[in-house]
Amino acid sequence: MPHISLPEGLPGISSGFAFRPETAKPMRELAHVLLHGPNTLSPGERELIATYVSSRNDCYFCQTSHGAAAAAHLDKDWGLVDQVKRDYAQAEISEKLKALLRIAGKVQLGGKQVTAEDVAAAREQGASDQEIHDTVLIAAAFCMYNRYVDGLGTWQPEEPAMYASMGEHLASHGYLTPSIKP
Amino acid sequence: MPHISLPEGLPGISSGFAFRPETAKPMRELAHVLLHGPNTLSPGERELIATYVSSRNDCYFCQTSHGAAAAAHLDKDWGLVDQVKRDYAQAEISEKLKALLRIAGKVQLGGKQVTAEDVAAAREQGASDQEIHDTVLIAAAFCMYNRYVDGLGTWQPEEPAMYASMGEHLASHGYLTPSIKP
Repeated sequence: MPHISLPEGLPGISSGFAFRPETAKPMRELAHVLLHGPNTLSPGERELIATYVSSRNDCYFCQTSHGAAAAAHLDKDWGLVDQVKRDYAQAEISEKLKALLRIAGKVQLGGKQVTAEDVAAAREQGASDQEIHDTVLIAAAFCMYNRYVDGLGTWQPEEPAMYASMGEHLASHGYLTPSIKP
Repeated sequence: MPHISLPEGLPGISSGFAFRPETAKPMRELAHVLLHGPNTLSPGERELIATYVSSRNDCYFCQTSHGAAAAAHLDKDWGLVDQVKRDYAQAEISEKLKALLRIAGKVQLGGKQVTAEDVAAAREQGASDQEIHDTVLIAAAFCMYNRYVDGLGTWQPEEPAMYASMGEHLASHGYLTPSIKP
């Protein structure tokens, strides 16, 4: 049961966005630039970072919807998405992405946890300054989105088909417009 | 020393904003709506919430700049700003704001920490749904801004005069344009 009177029938963050369109607009734009805009990190890699951070923050709605978006980008490889959440060091992903996920995990704990060594390790694997910047910001932004979704006590249904459909929509269209209509 | 090559001479979040204008735009807009837009919570109250959360996240730049913005809104009552950071329960603020700060502190720990009792207590003190929503989102958003500022290892000077001037600018003009010019 949500903590405030959110519009009914809208899952997770969609209900907060519908409640307060003035804040929804920049929050949608930020997600769109970070996850869907032009980038040397693929959309699948960026969605994996978002999913990993949301999983560490224990946000069911965000880890499931962004996990579905990641799977939609990655030839429906749901096993890879699960493996990244469970233990990314063992996942079949690049060493660069592993180094970036390490930075993202540090940011999830707190900005000061990121060390010069973490950043040097990512750079050794070929990460650019912008890729490191975007990793820090994706992780930081999901520390916001996750807290928003759970801090409002939003409704978070558990039907896998709904998340799969949402993930397909997000992977194709990005974040500027609702993936679920009121 | 910043973790990546950020523009020199810009303190804290300004350097990240200058590095990546595409993400700066929605991040500025979100802060502007939350802290400076029309609201039944005064700008001073909202800046106190932002300052309190930044203090709990141990982000020097954010707690000092938003503390200065709060003081600028609150007749330069720096003592009140310090008291809210140290122990808001003893501060000369409304019971409603105390109940909202309690919610903000829970969000800082994690969205799921907010309880129905926390929200009921705020409502008993007259807080509206939108005020509760905005408190949750201000707290969540500063969990992003704080991690961004510290996760990039930004330069954070300690001259009080610089923060006082920044606070005056933010209190007067809001967040859409830089308060410190490159």
